[in-house]
Amino acid sequence: MGLPHIVNAKPGDVSKNVIAVGDPGRVELLATLLESPMVVNKHRGLTVVTGYYKNSKVTIATHGMGCPSANIVFEELGILGARRIVRLGTAGGLHESVKIGDVVVATGAMYVNGGCGLSQYMPGYCGASSPDPVLTYRIIKELEKTGISFKKGPLFTSDAFYAESPEMASRLSKYGALAVEMEAAGLFTLGWIRGWETGCVVVVSNVLHGGEPNKEFLTTRELADKFLKTAQVLMEVFNKYYGEP
Amino acid sequence: MGLPHIVNAKPGDVSKNVIAVGDPGRVELLATLLESPMVVNKHRGLTVVTGYYKNSKVTIATHGMGCPSANIVFEELGILGARRIVRLGTAGGLHESVKIGDVVVATGAMYVNGGCGLSQYMPGYCGASSPDPVLTYRIIKELEKTGISFKKGPLFTSDAFYAESPEMASRLSKYGALAVEMEAAGLFTLGWIRGWETGCVVVVSNVLHGGEPNKEFLTTRELADKFLKTAQVLMEVFNKYYGEP
Amino acid sequence: MGLPHIVNAKPGDVSKNVIAVGDPGRVELLATLLESPMVVNKHRGLTVVTGYYKNSKVTIATHGMGCPSANIVFEELGILGARRIVRLGTAGGLHESVKIGDVVVATGAMYVNGGCGLSQYMPGYCGASSPDPVLTYRIIKELEKTGISFKKGPLFTSDAFYAESPEMASRLSKYGALAVEMEAAGLFTLGWIRGWETGCVVVVSNVLHGGEPNKEFLTTRELADKFLKTAQVLMEVFNKYYGEP
Amino acid sequence: MGLPHIVNAKPGDVSKNVIAVGDPGRVELLATLLESPMVVNKHRGLTVVTGYYKNSKVTIATHGMGCPSANIVFEELGILGARRIVRLGTAGGLHESVKIGDVVVATGAMYVNGGCGLSQYMPGYCGASSPDPVLTYRIIKELEKTGISFKKGPLFTSDAFYAESPEMASRLSKYGALAVEMEAAGLFTLGWIRGWETGCVVVVSNVLHGGEPNKEFLTTRELADKFLKTAQVLMEVFNKYYGEP
Amino acid sequence: MGLPHIVNAKPGDVSKNVIAVGDPGRVELLATLLESPMVVNKHRGLTVVTGYYKNSKVTIATHGMGCPSANIVFEELGILGARRIVRLGTAGGLHESVKIGDVVVATGAMYVNGGCGLSQYMPGYCGASSPDPVLTYRIIKELEKTGISFKKGPLFTSDAFYAESPEMASRLSKYGALAVEMEAAGLFTLGWIRGWETGCVVVVSNVLHGGEPNKEFLTTRELADKFLKTAQVLMEVFNKYYGEP
Amino acid sequence: MGLPHIVNAKPGDVSKNVIAVGDPGRVELLATLLESPMVVNKHRGLTVVTGYYKNSKVTIATHGMGCPSANIVFEELGILGARRIVRLGTAGGLHESVKIGDVVVATGAMYVNGGCGLSQYMPGYCGASSPDPVLTYRIIKELEKTGISFKKGPLFTSDAFYAESPEMASRLSKYGALAVEMEAAGLFTLGWIRGWETGCVVVVSNVLHGGEPNKEFLTTRELADKFLKTAQVLMEVFNKYYGEP
Repeated sequence: MGLPHIVNAKPGDVSKNVIAVGDPGRVELLATLLESPMVVNKHRGLTVVTGYYKNSKVTIATHGMGCPSANIVFEELGILGARRIVRLGTAGGLHESVKIGDVVVATGAMYVNGGCGLSQYMPGYCGASSPDPVLTYRIIKELEKTGISFKKGPLFTSDAFYAESPEMASRLSKYGALAVEMEAAGLFTLGWIRGWETGCVVVVSNVLHGGEPNKEFLTTRELADKFLKTAQVLMEVFNKYYGEP
Repeated sequence: MGLPHIVNAKPGDVSKNVIAVGDPGRVELLATLLESPMVVNKHRGLTVVTGYYKNSKVTIATHGMGCPSANIVFEELGILGARRIVRLGTAGGLHESVKIGDVVVATGAMYVNGGCGLSQYMPGYCGASSPDPVLTYRIIKELEKTGISFKKGPLFTSDAFYAESPEMASRLSKYGALAVEMEAAGLFTLGWIRGWETGCVVVVSNVLHGGEPNKEFLTTRELADKFLKTAQVLMEVFNKYYGEP
Repeated sequence: MGLPHIVNAKPGDVSKNVIAVGDPGRVELLATLLESPMVVNKHRGLTVVTGYYKNSKVTIATHGMGCPSANIVFEELGILGARRIVRLGTAGGLHESVKIGDVVVATGAMYVNGGCGLSQYMPGYCGASSPDPVLTYRIIKELEKTGISFKKGPLFTSDAFYAESPEMASRLSKYGALAVEMEAAGLFTLGWIRGWETGCVVVVSNVLHGGEPNKEFLTTRELADKFLKTAQVLMEVFNKYYGEP
Repeated sequence: MGLPHIVNAKPGDVSKNVIAVGDPGRVELLATLLESPMVVNKHRGLTVVTGYYKNSKVTIATHGMGCPSANIVFEELGILGARRIVRLGTAGGLHESVKIGDVVVATGAMYVNGGCGLSQYMPGYCGASSPDPVLTYRIIKELEKTGISFKKGPLFTSDAFYAESPEMASRLSKYGALAVEMEAAGLFTLGWIRGWETGCVVVVSNVLHGGEPNKEFLTTRELADKFLKTAQVLMEVFNKYYGEP
Repeated sequence: MGLPHIVNAKPGDVSKNVIAVGDPGRVELLATLLESPMVVNKHRGLTVVTGYYKNSKVTIATHGMGCPSANIVFEELGILGARRIVRLGTAGGLHESVKIGDVVVATGAMYVNGGCGLSQYMPGYCGASSPDPVLTYRIIKELEKTGISFKKGPLFTSDAFYAESPEMASRLSKYGALAVEMEAAGLFTLGWIRGWETGCVVVVSNVLHGGEPNKEFLTTRELADKFLKTAQVLMEVFNKYYGEP
Repeated sequence: MGLPHIVNAKPGDVSKNVIAVGDPGRVELLATLLESPMVVNKHRGLTVVTGYYKNSKVTIATHGMGCPSANIVFEELGILGARRIVRLGTAGGLHESVKIGDVVVATGAMYVNGGCGLSQYMPGYCGASSPDPVLTYRIIKELEKTGISFKKGPLFTSDAFYAESPEMASRLSKYGALAVEMEAAGLFTLGWIRGWETGCVVVVSNVLHGGEPNKEFLTTRELADKFLKTAQVLMEVFNKYYGEP
């Protein structure tokens, strides 16, 4: 597939182990957990940083918003050597049991027929939009050890933030979806196509159930705190089981 | 949803932990692993047996062929108390690396848009057709311990055995599918809707890659041997982590 | 397409004329109408019996539940020599005029886009899900002669029994559907692909209209009586017009 | 649904029994078979004539080309009192056995997902696109009696004449389609929705199999001859079984 | 694509500039604006007239009702030399701001997935159903100059007049559709495939919003008046910018 | 729809007239054409700058990659007061006539069924993915005046850059698509829903036809030059016809 067009980095610049986030600001936040962080991409504002967590190389990458953007970044990280990608993002709560501030470990992702760019990869099929179970198990166990409370269950990966509604939340939560976000189904399905291990953990920043969707949002500070703690869990998992010197 | 119509059993008759297979003959085979096996359903030839493995209650159920049949059985097992369902079945190899006799642990399942009866549950959506990662991890670890070699990856859940072809095998294996079978996507997706933990392990009985599909099949004896060994692994997992006295 | 995998019979074992039912128990029931009945398959619990009705060879076969299962059985019966397949089954009443105990002769079958396994046979198309008109006419005339009252009209072939609802019943009955069952659309569409003459007669065992779906069911005895009478009508038709010595 | 907008006729103007054709010129041709023919509509060039065949009232109506046009005409004929509509049209041969000049009695009609205007009537479903079997049987028997040789089988109802191709012909003939035309699926499916008995007979005017589609066409004279003979068969059926004085 | 089958004309018979209408009666009406009008087709009642407006050759063609019919006519006009086709038709108002008698200049056309015959041209895609912006701009400017008040916005191209409803009107007007008609999406999309410049202007003859759809219609006289004025605008545009001697 | 979540600006910060680009680097480039440029958003790296071109207020905004990202930005720009949005981006040539360096003015945009996030806005429909014809006409005329050579025609809006192929290029160019990009269909369709005037101009940076897709790319310098010249054209159009002081 040739050289990457968006992520202007060289193969050595990217670790086998990647944490991917939507917002470049969050890459900067999470990079504070790394030693010797090096910015390996700034192109298109999609900041990518590689550094070390406890002697283990880790890359933190911005994937932008939505599957078409994120899938390009994932594909190019793959070309550059990534073998394991965990998305850490925000989500809107769909199920009534899911509250602002909750952490959700994704066990799968539903999506609209033809959505997430996946019908161009596999026209006519619903993809295997499931994370790697071993990697997911290890994240779950590490979260439990750290004492961060979390829920586990499927997400809904949306392509249209402004078309979401309480009615949709009610319908999707009947299908088992805990929260809505915009990139997991693409990441999971591409993972099986390309041979990467994938996972996804989200922090619920707002909820769509109840009378009015997206009325209240988690404060930036609370979000930052949750993100740092959860990212550290992911780095621990990378370091323990998949460490790259 | 009222009383079950197909599985004529009472709530106490079914364990929280179920192994589901397509062929009633295989239920009889696997029941040889149980103590005090009791046939709790014979209706429609869909034999269901409940017994004990190492003091832990286990149900072995026939789901018939294809998602519409299997989903009815799964729904009724759920009504009767099942909380964990692992399908143990046969599959056709899609990817060239998958050989006759291989064991595959499913990490997800792709399916045709509108297929597997799922578009009647969630019209317009591709479901979260992923197994429970914790249960799947435990099956993987137990298989490793037992020394049974296996592959892990997504399956393709087909609704039309006689419409399958080498061309389809080639296309689906590019999407990451290792093997084709007929019930996993329904089981996985229903699991998240109903709140069950699900999993699926298949034995490759034939392959669709190469010149001619379905030319050679695993002998009945070899299949029986693989099934017994794999079922024992599943029962060990049930007993260790989810034991029901 | 090679040898049959599921129906373990030899070509001579199966008549050109087949009555297919979902429940192996019903095969045994209907076999009481035959002379010299011979069980030609027991594999997977899908009992198949061949015998004689008034010197005319007839096969009664179990197709299991749902199109993916039934289509395999139909394909293999075709490989084994069947040229005429009439399904005799139970159905849920959709239209308010359809009552418990009614006999319905199918004149066509609607189904969900992508459903019934048919999108794997003909991706992108709605199939010709209509029975053979000559065979259907003859069944209608024989029913009239026998004095069994019946309705005629299209069925809805469902892939998901537990996703059916009174709302669906109301919608589908506006499209003209009289009753819901799970195999007719597959049988009819395959018939035109493979060159078989097909038909379908159902007995309404429950209704989905009204407040609560599937609340009341026909008793086993009443069902058995209706099935025997209707099966005899089908055998008369086979004997008169398509007799195989 | 209010008064008809396109067919400017009064209820008494239209018989219960209708023959519908695409070309107004053919209405004039077939009207030569009627006594006391009366033009009851000229609006939009969609000539409708009502007259008598052997003391039995018959209407011959133009439906234009394609389902959206024809379905409007059928709906309005229904509002005006039609209870039985048989389309008599031309078709392109798809199956290699189908030759120029052949008569085909339709036993069903396949169509593209979302096509024939039917997804606006029943979004998400494939309709019951089958003719009335009793009416179809009677047409078949009358054709046999008259000595007109014919084939029976499903048609493909196309929405796009200029998108048809030999490749499509080859694909569809594998699904059992004998010929392609542009209105049958709409007529059949509407029939079950509205409670009309429907049928369709086509004359093959050209073939799409072989090297070049639509290269050779039946001469106007040969077509006219076939149409007159076949229309007379339909009128005989109306007169014998459904006569309206 | 060979010779035209429906429009029985010779290449010289058709101008590069075409106004297309649904009703042959309207062709006759608009032909009163032409000098030396010549009927170049009468086949299938699809009257086509070619004449001169201020020394500029113009063709006025009947396209029948619905995209399958109209697309055949457009394709054949293209084969015969048309390079610019503007549909002038009637429409039903969808948006509450659209009143009976309004003129709407189409800026695009939405349609049902799989509808308008377009999925046979481009299976799996939504077409570029937009008119030529330069031609559309010139029509808008000429309308402004003439003082005919009009609205501009997208249309909904329906395949099923009798499946339309106030609920549909409400839904589609939220998507921005001003009015519903039956041919624009096909014309616009074919335009880009075949290289024609296309446009569409409609007169609102009835409205679907409010309590009861299609209750009141514009009188024939008012319609005729609007049509003549609007057609003259189109002919002015042809003459000024695209004149063919 | 509440306050914007992504574009952290106040209503007065955004002009009625917006040029939107994918890459924040290009916002900086184009801002060199403005007087008194003010950065009004940096959040998520989606730089938005507002300034003046010849006394007329203009906003230049980053929309990221792909419709799900861009649609969020467009929706929020709309909330903040934008009434006119023209995308200026890069594209891959599909049609053989389209060469590296070409400027293409979009006249419409095709997309995959279910793609571009649009099926969440209007499930079951193909949207009116056409730009405003008046705005588009004015851009075309201004380009002509400036002497920048350009092509006009429809684009294909893709959701999956890494699923594109020469085979796809060949197919889409038969449907009339000149080039592939990732945001136009969303912008155009939203425009009609929300009441904005939209347009799109792309510079072809690479081509997919020929042996190997995306082999050669336009140099950054050439791209920058084309972008500056084209942006200036857009600003002239804003200033002349839609000037906001």
